[in-house]
Amino acid sequence: MCQLLGMNCNVPTDICFSFEGFSARGGKTDVHQDGWGIAFFEGLGCRIFIDSKPAVDSPIAELVRRYPIHSTNVIAHIRKATQGEIALENCHPFIRALWGRYWVFAHNGNLENFHPESAGFYQAVGNTDSEKAFCLILEKLRESFPQHKPALTELYAVLNEITKTLAEYGILNFLLSDGEHLFVHCSTNLHYIVRQAPFASAHSIDEDITVDFRELTKEGDRVAVIATFPLTDNEVWTQIQVGELLVFQEGLPINFEC
Amino acid sequence: MCQLLGMNCNVPTDICFSFEGFSARGGKTDVHQDGWGIAFFEGLGCRIFIDSKPAVDSPIAELVRRYPIHSTNVIAHIRKATQGEIALENCHPFIRALWGRYWVFAHNGNLENFHPESAGFYQAVGNTDSEKAFCLILEKLRESFPQHKPALTELYAVLNEITKTLAEYGILNFLLSDGEHLFVHCSTNLHYIVRQAPFASAHSIDEDITVDFRELTKEGDRVAVIATFPLTDNEVWTQIQVGELLVFQEGLPINFEC
Repeated sequence: MCQLLGMNCNVPTDICFSFEGFSARGGKTDVHQDGWGIAFFEGLGCRIFIDSKPAVDSPIAELVRRYPIHSTNVIAHIRKATQGEIALENCHPFIRALWGRYWVFAHNGNLENFHPESAGFYQAVGNTDSEKAFCLILEKLRESFPQHKPALTELYAVLNEITKTLAEYGILNFLLSDGEHLFVHCSTNLHYIVRQAPFASAHSIDEDITVDFRELTKEGDRVAVIATFPLTDNEVWTQIQVGELLVFQEGLPINFEC
Repeated sequence: MCQLLGMNCNVPTDICFSFEGFSARGGKTDVHQDGWGIAFFEGLGCRIFIDSKPAVDSPIAELVRRYPIHSTNVIAHIRKATQGEIALENCHPFIRALWGRYWVFAHNGNLENFHPESAGFYQAVGNTDSEKAFCLILEKLRESFPQHKPALTELYAVLNEITKTLAEYGILNFLLSDGEHLFVHCSTNLHYIVRQAPFASAHSIDEDITVDFRELTKEGDRVAVIATFPLTDNEVWTQIQVGELLVFQEGLPINFEC
């Protein structure tokens, strides 16, 4: 299994504090040492850092911990391999383009006996169930909306259907974003917190680090952080319901009941 | 205009020495300070570092200069913007997937009055002529070979046709790779060198640095380095002919005469 970390905000925000504790789980405080990756959306642009080394030993992870990259949508992943060998092409997040935007995906779980046809536009490069699921999601979205990104309600309805079908194959916790929306599906464990005024301080579970968000934020800032397990021990995290597909936009979850 | 740097080898090799001098041209020894990027293929996997900051000021470029990433195909780019604002989505190299492989592209030049239809599978995310050209190349390759990567001779013939058509719009120096082959098209300036036994030392033009490849290589190693302008002043670089499309494989150029 793996662990996921996501962030969705209404202003570009750095993820250094959350990533510091999260990446410690990649070989130091936990066993997820078969690679890691993180994607940052900045406007339409997206940069992804991936590494097949454990996050705690990776000079690239060290850079991400120290160099504040300000982003409105972030997806990070630390890997404990289930399917697919330890290799760069099997590191999450994966990236593809759809409707003139980049789409990024990371998965925690395991889809069994999942062998979708790959004759369409989107084909996996590596050999994980996760990348195949991502390609299938994009393929189906493209089939439903060939030209443009539809209205969010339409997109949500189709994505929810695809997700339910995929979830029949096993555990499917995922984060998916195009830089505008962050889609979050929970199959077993995912938690989130929304930080907004009045801001307070937060203490990491994984490292003895405290950050005072009052010093780092402005009045209207709003940041949602999503993680497999809570990252702080003095804040209240909300557990996402099993089978639930949430959408975050500008730091807030939108819950569509379909 | 911009500058390009490419590497194609028969064994995974780091590009620290070449990138050190090259990146100095990104705001220190030359004016290409509107962003930069570098892609490393490792097997089927690919990682790309991009930044809209000048390469000389970028902490990520500093990491790439210091942290040896071993790769068989590298494409790097420093940008002096002509079309498209200074933004992450306009930084080269660009990445897409085709035939279950990643493809990476960087361009030096300027295509004028170039407005291809983007109704196909590959659409640009940013607004550079370069990304549009890349999308058109992949679209045409996919139309010609819908399912799989064809034999190199077939691929070369089609790519050469597409390239000639594109080059009618202006200056088109480019590097294109899928991690197996590195395609190099010269419209104005591109040079290459093949380093193989007996190895010698090389001195950077841009920085007062000398590297002795005898200490870093094994007998059978072969490395081709391609750059807009030579990177060293004590080696003989070959100027690529105007209008020529070269393919490098395992550190050697293959010249198809079509």
